[in-house]
Amino acid sequence: MHETINISPKKMLSEFNRILISRGFTEDKALQCDQIFTNNSVDGVYSHGVNRFANFVKMVDDGFVKPNNTPSLKNKHAGIEQWDGNFGAGPLNAMHATDTAINLSQQYGIGCVALSNTNHWMRGGAYGWHAARKGFVFIGWTNTIANMPAWGAVDNRLGNNPLVIAVPFKNEAIVLDMAMSQYSFGSMELAKMKDKKLLVNGGYDTSGQLTKDPSEIIASKRALPIGYWKGAGLSLLLDVLATILSGGLSTKEISKNKIESSVSQVFIAIDISKLNNNSSIPGMIENIINDYHRSVTEDEKAKIMYPGERVLETRKNNLAKGIPVIKKIWEEIMQL
Amino acid sequence: MHETINISPKKMLSEFNRILISRGFTEDKALQCDQIFTNNSVDGVYSHGVNRFANFVKMVDDGFVKPNNTPSLKNKHAGIEQWDGNFGAGPLNAMHATDTAINLSQQYGIGCVALSNTNHWMRGGAYGWHAARKGFVFIGWTNTIANMPAWGAVDNRLGNNPLVIAVPFKNEAIVLDMAMSQYSFGSMELAKMKDKKLLVNGGYDTSGQLTKDPSEIIASKRALPIGYWKGAGLSLLLDVLATILSGGLSTKEISKNKIESSVSQVFIAIDISKLNNNSSIPGMIENIINDYHRSVTEDEKAKIMYPGERVLETRKNNLAKGIPVIKKIWEEIMQL
Repeated sequence: MHETINISPKKMLSEFNRILISRGFTEDKALQCDQIFTNNSVDGVYSHGVNRFANFVKMVDDGFVKPNNTPSLKNKHAGIEQWDGNFGAGPLNAMHATDTAINLSQQYGIGCVALSNTNHWMRGGAYGWHAARKGFVFIGWTNTIANMPAWGAVDNRLGNNPLVIAVPFKNEAIVLDMAMSQYSFGSMELAKMKDKKLLVNGGYDTSGQLTKDPSEIIASKRALPIGYWKGAGLSLLLDVLATILSGGLSTKEISKNKIESSVSQVFIAIDISKLNNNSSIPGMIENIINDYHRSVTEDEKAKIMYPGERVLETRKNNLAKGIPVIKKIWEEIMQL
Repeated sequence: MHETINISPKKMLSEFNRILISRGFTEDKALQCDQIFTNNSVDGVYSHGVNRFANFVKMVDDGFVKPNNTPSLKNKHAGIEQWDGNFGAGPLNAMHATDTAINLSQQYGIGCVALSNTNHWMRGGAYGWHAARKGFVFIGWTNTIANMPAWGAVDNRLGNNPLVIAVPFKNEAIVLDMAMSQYSFGSMELAKMKDKKLLVNGGYDTSGQLTKDPSEIIASKRALPIGYWKGAGLSLLLDVLATILSGGLSTKEISKNKIESSVSQVFIAIDISKLNNNSSIPGMIENIINDYHRSVTEDEKAKIMYPGERVLETRKNNLAKGIPVIKKIWEEIMQL
């Protein structure tokens, strides 16, 4: 087990800020980027927050992430726009694209922004929470470097291409944020770090057997797609769409380099205030969630939760008690 | 094993036509509906073609499907429209919504049609093939009656809510058409009818153990979501979106009746001819598919195929040799 220490969000934000400013981020950009990394950590998504920060800084140091580059519009046709991310910081580009899709949806009911040449957006859910808290439906996805074989194959030619769907709910949101592999590599690395087994088979060991051991899957690099052939098919289609809509690189092309950079992403927003049933939407969602909560569980002590529900509790805890960070990771960050 | 007979598409179409005309469909509507049922069968999706036809006719006879009702526009805001399906035939309503989304996308780049009070669309992929062959990207889904428990639950409160994503490819299409359960009930019923086991666990038996026996899962009614909690979450969000965007019924509300009727659906089309990389899109898709095809398979004789690829071969065979139909099913249809 790894020793953890609690870091206040304020402290985390200020350390991240110090580091990004030292890497040439403007004050505005550093603040926005720090906030996303800190919020992801407050929400308990450490694998794409504090645990990934040092790697993000390395991407800046190595020239893959250009701190102050901003997206530029390549093409527009009414509700759909194509942008070039110009290798800017993934979280900043993604937030920009989300806000642009929201603006488009206010005008056209539905808006779509496709973004090429961007970098890892860290936690995709961040953009779902952002849009849904403002009252918009959000659907977005990214392609990634190849990290998953097709069903029946042994070599990685698919990305795990996370998909995010979010809707407003009680001043907060329901946010589904799922990679197409049964487990994201971020969560498998975290499980490995904590010496934990996975709950269900997450991939293959080096001898080709299905396993719950994250170290084995990280070693074999053979992650299992959700639903076998179904998740493989969905991953393929998400890559095709991200590539053709943005005019950017596909998983295959991204994978020519060992480092994941220049990914393609799609951001769709829907302005539900334009619907004729707008005023009844909160009640409609509540009815569905209330029914879902009434599920009879196999384990009597278990409770069925909607996607994002657990986040609210983690957020409350981490805001009150500080963010639990693996000590070694925090010490590395303090050296940056 | 059940004896099968080969029925020519022309014969199937003409029998379906005779029956629908006898149920009061106008000639136009009967022809369009017959064509969809026949095409689904030609493409090998028997569970949502010929095998489901008698059930569809029963839905008409029982008054759930109103043969000549057509969708009416409830609300429009630029690229998004809300339609009431008025309990018309599901395939006709869905084709109308697909064509409307296509028209919207030609004007706004992206178009979205949400449809309430409609009926089972049979094979969702039909609308994906239709849109993609015309050159459009298609994303669509439907909610269903509750037929799947949440992950960790024993009672059915989720639909299996099929999702369809299609893109144009070589004058044909790549079409992903997947229910959120590991197996659709249609395909489990077909496997049961053919005395076949499932390839992977598809749900639970009546004693709560995971099983590959379709009869057991049909008996327990506990289908497994793809990717466990992930497919459950995706199913929930697809239901929320279909419900709020259409202003229609949710899975919970549909399930108040034993008969699945008055479902809610979403149809999104994107006009890729409006993109600045339009001319390079076929090449982009081909590069991705060529790479996917180069996957090294675990079983040397196996070949990795993209979603919809197998359909092309089945279609060719069935057009040449006739559609293989279980004799008993065809005899029932001939009695209608």
